[in-house]
Amino acid sequence: MKARVHITLKTSVLDPQGKAISHALGALGFSGVDDVRQGKYIELEIDETDPEKAHQNVQSMCERLLANPVIEDYAIELDG
Amino acid sequence: MKARVHITLKTSVLDPQGKAISHALGALGFSGVDDVRQGKYIELEIDETDPEKAHQNVQSMCERLLANPVIEDYAIELDG
Repeated sequence: MKARVHITLKTSVLDPQGKAISHALGALGFSGVDDVRQGKYIELEIDETDPEKAHQNVQSMCERLLANPVIEDYAIELDG
Repeated sequence: MKARVHITLKTSVLDPQGKAISHALGALGFSGVDDVRQGKYIELEIDETDPEKAHQNVQSMCERLLANPVIEDYAIELDG
């Protein structure tokens, strides 16, 4: 089963990387870009076949390793 | 309009960051994780209202700044 995890900074947390991208896009002549936020995207191939267990498993991975729950949100999608 | 961009290493390119995550998950006791790939996820808030123009615009941003087309693939989603 494939799991896709999106990890983004909480909206209340300043995103300097996003700001840098926004600034660089402006410098390249792209106008009309209001806000940019950068996050991480992780694809995992896991053995578990039960979707509920797989979700619990990936959630636990997020809490313990993949994300920093203090400043980051994560979203888990499963397929296959 | 909001644009979401997923940037991932081409499958033929080695992903050391993914390998490191996979290894760390194993060390934490998570078994059954076969493959991990890490990519980037970027959310952009753009002024453009025409979806076709917006897509062209974001594609151009990917080619020129956000992604490295030699080793990375990107996927663009638009909404709003």
